[in-house]
Amino acid sequence: MNNPIKDSWIAFIHDLQNRICTSLEAADGQAHFMEDQWQRPEGGGGKTRVIANGKVFEKGGVNTSVVYGPVTDAMRSQLKIDGENWFACGLSLVIHPLNPFVPTVHCNYRMFEMYDKNHTVTDRWFGGGTDLTPYYLIDEDATHFHRTYKNVCDQFDPSFYPAFKRECDHYFVNTHRNNERRGIGGIFYDHQRPNEINDVDFWFRFGQSCGNAFISAYVPIVEKRKEMEWNAGHKHWQEIRRGRYTEFNLVHDRGTLFGLRTNGRTESILMSLPPTVRFEYNYQPAPGSEEERLLDACLRPKEWV
Amino acid sequence: MNNPIKDSWIAFIHDLQNRICTSLEAADGQAHFMEDQWQRPEGGGGKTRVIANGKVFEKGGVNTSVVYGPVTDAMRSQLKIDGENWFACGLSLVIHPLNPFVPTVHCNYRMFEMYDKNHTVTDRWFGGGTDLTPYYLIDEDATHFHRTYKNVCDQFDPSFYPAFKRECDHYFVNTHRNNERRGIGGIFYDHQRPNEINDVDFWFRFGQSCGNAFISAYVPIVEKRKEMEWNAGHKHWQEIRRGRYTEFNLVHDRGTLFGLRTNGRTESILMSLPPTVRFEYNYQPAPGSEEERLLDACLRPKEWV
Repeated sequence: MNNPIKDSWIAFIHDLQNRICTSLEAADGQAHFMEDQWQRPEGGGGKTRVIANGKVFEKGGVNTSVVYGPVTDAMRSQLKIDGENWFACGLSLVIHPLNPFVPTVHCNYRMFEMYDKNHTVTDRWFGGGTDLTPYYLIDEDATHFHRTYKNVCDQFDPSFYPAFKRECDHYFVNTHRNNERRGIGGIFYDHQRPNEINDVDFWFRFGQSCGNAFISAYVPIVEKRKEMEWNAGHKHWQEIRRGRYTEFNLVHDRGTLFGLRTNGRTESILMSLPPTVRFEYNYQPAPGSEEERLLDACLRPKEWV
Repeated sequence: MNNPIKDSWIAFIHDLQNRICTSLEAADGQAHFMEDQWQRPEGGGGKTRVIANGKVFEKGGVNTSVVYGPVTDAMRSQLKIDGENWFACGLSLVIHPLNPFVPTVHCNYRMFEMYDKNHTVTDRWFGGGTDLTPYYLIDEDATHFHRTYKNVCDQFDPSFYPAFKRECDHYFVNTHRNNERRGIGGIFYDHQRPNEINDVDFWFRFGQSCGNAFISAYVPIVEKRKEMEWNAGHKHWQEIRRGRYTEFNLVHDRGTLFGLRTNGRTESILMSLPPTVRFEYNYQPAPGSEEERLLDACLRPKEWV
């Protein structure tokens, strides 16, 4: 079937993957991404690109996938979707820097389509988001990150940034840790469908603009902080917080759990886990410390713009 | 209500906790357990005992809890239990040694009771098990561990060891990693109820005997291996395998997930997580190496006795 929207989205995602990898390699100055291409027996495949042991980036992945197939029972029950066949294409990245003053970042932009028996598109939606996980809170970095996405959102609809920031604050939550957030948020949106106000082209361009904004939202923070000096105490705290990151991804993250339970490519899904992690019984930061200030921002999300 | 079985089990569990802690402190020779007592708002509480940064034990917990309350909707749906009120008392331990040649160990022994509106016992069952997670496979240690539990089982019923070993091999499985086991198993049994052949006293004594066997199953292995020399390569592999331990506990372990989702005491539940962990993209041990030999034993459970 002729489907220019789908083809354009696939082309955009692969181009974005290239641009992001190039930009991160330049910021690292040493390591390069290596690529694993994989095929999915049920249809489609992906390009997993990982970077490891860089000067700046200790571990990271910038993955794309273009996958499709018949709707399974697991999808019907867990994703609450209906139809005969589905298609999904997206980019997903997680970057874990070595330096505890450089934040971890995650983003994901994706498009879904559903088809009936005649291969006609019966449904189509977009989702995505980018969120920041600092280990030390540098207010100007948090503001820069949020302002970048607010600027993008405001070009489409002034109601988007507050709504999608709230979604993000409500999603990345360790409910078993007193509702502590994984980090300081960003934006998150899902199931955005063409409607009377905003057509397919609108949501396509919105996803594109958010995806494109990643480089200007994140890389300037890396450049500003990558040479900051850190010691064993900073690394210890980073590894404790990476433990919380691991807990969220393995206990709560819907995408991770769905992937692991439906025979997804485990290595590509779990590239999101941090390189080194520390779990200590009942660890509490010292009162009044910078560590406690970060924790407080995770417990009580702030308005950064 | 007069309930001598319940009272005796509680007394046994607390005595076992004391004996195990004393024995592990002696094997460590340096660190001591510290105790946190906690109360559960809905009824009961526990004693969490943790050891950290010892000469032999890098992190560990030997926890007991005596908890009860009204049956909740979460319990009805997730545990498939019925009745008005419930009671549970058990001991749960996880020990993570510093030396990669000393295996990690886990055990859990517990008793449940259910009551009707008149506080009459309507159901009662026992469950438990002990399993070993080595980082390097030393056959005589694996055999000693399994033989200890086979000897206990055989005193009760010769069919128990093969059945409960198989249960263990089927439970601690990272299904998302090609059905790799967390370790080399041990025994695992659940929902053992009094019946025409074996009465309450039988299952009580079986749990007691398995619990008591922990010290002779594990501590001699610690004593034999704790002075073995290890290098950074051995530690690296231990941390990679601890990553798999983390994945199992957070993605698959029913007890952990039920606790986290039903407002259990998070710090006591997650004391099971290893102190330091490493996640690397697509890490594979060298062909023919000792690391590969261990991995093979996790992929294809062996008969050790």
